[in-house]
Amino acid sequence: MKLYDWQGAPNPRRVLMFLKEKGIELEVIETGAEGARLSEDFLASDGQRTVPALELDDGTRIGEAMAICRYLETLHPEPSLMGTDALDSAKVDMWERRADVEGVGAAGELFRNSHPAFDGRGLPGQAERIEQIPELVERGRARMGWFFEKFDAQIGDSPFVTGENFTVADITAFCATDFARKVSKVQIPDACANFARWYESVRARASAKR
Amino acid sequence: MKLYDWQGAPNPRRVLMFLKEKGIELEVIETGAEGARLSEDFLASDGQRTVPALELDDGTRIGEAMAICRYLETLHPEPSLMGTDALDSAKVDMWERRADVEGVGAAGELFRNSHPAFDGRGLPGQAERIEQIPELVERGRARMGWFFEKFDAQIGDSPFVTGENFTVADITAFCATDFARKVSKVQIPDACANFARWYESVRARASAKR
Repeated sequence: MKLYDWQGAPNPRRVLMFLKEKGIELEVIETGAEGARLSEDFLASDGQRTVPALELDDGTRIGEAMAICRYLETLHPEPSLMGTDALDSAKVDMWERRADVEGVGAAGELFRNSHPAFDGRGLPGQAERIEQIPELVERGRARMGWFFEKFDAQIGDSPFVTGENFTVADITAFCATDFARKVSKVQIPDACANFARWYESVRARASAKR
Repeated sequence: MKLYDWQGAPNPRRVLMFLKEKGIELEVIETGAEGARLSEDFLASDGQRTVPALELDDGTRIGEAMAICRYLETLHPEPSLMGTDALDSAKVDMWERRADVEGVGAAGELFRNSHPAFDGRGLPGQAERIEQIPELVERGRARMGWFFEKFDAQIGDSPFVTGENFTVADITAFCATDFARKVSKVQIPDACANFARWYESVRARASAKR
């Protein structure tokens, strides 16, 4: 198996953190090319035009971060990162998706519509031009604020997003936050002290190193 | 158990189709109120401010369509709607997410930013005003076109999105399409004959009746 990564991008990082938490080692292929683009080789080989993609030994590709993680969770159940029973898994799925839509989605909207290198690439995965929309920069920044508030309340006094266990909900929320901080200078609001404590604890994990 | 629905909205419909395919019967509560809004009662009871939400007998709520479906799939495994083994499940997860982001996401973007009743509600789930952005109407329409092309190629000669079995990937792609057709007059392009055949076959299923 090998994983197609794009250094710095939040979605492949979700899978990389998952692999490290599981102790799974596999070949990682960097697809980044000059001009903050995916390489022509990768684009020519993959109709989805996004990373991450997991390639199995027979050449089959699995795309989408959580589809890859769930596949690997089935093959390597321990340590569990997607819930311990039906209800716990439902909570993890629910909060992971919220971290994806409201965190990664907001961070991506803010970044893609503001960075000069992404002129004409307002959304990922398309060969055709997609114009940047200035209003989405401000909206993305507002959405990041709502994301911090919602997850701050959800985390409360718990160590992790869904309670006592570190899961993919933490991975996705962390990758969204770290990406927005680095590329768009978004700051965790002072009022979100639970979130800030949680963020520092996740950042200290070995899996968070790049 | 009971399910909070909002008649006409695509996300609760994904769960309703899933329930019908499984033969699961449960209480369905309509949350729609005047002015194309969720009822004050529902909004006051649920911090996420979106449907669907599944309420368990102890009052616990599970939100997000696929978190609900996966929970019910664990409780009622037959007929399988989320894949038959690890690899098949990965394909279903992958294509379901693409139908969600590229289909439901596009249809929602187009609708929310164009309908007068959604003035100030450009995204779901927020109490604060989110202005409509006219550029997203055109972009949403373009994205629907790319969604049809991609899924037309994926379906090919197969009966369903991931091959021989009807799954949640079909449910999500169908709900996106049906919603966009009804509320935004989006048409399946003539060139997408595989998609059109697939759409009619899913529309004929008992689970597609509202």
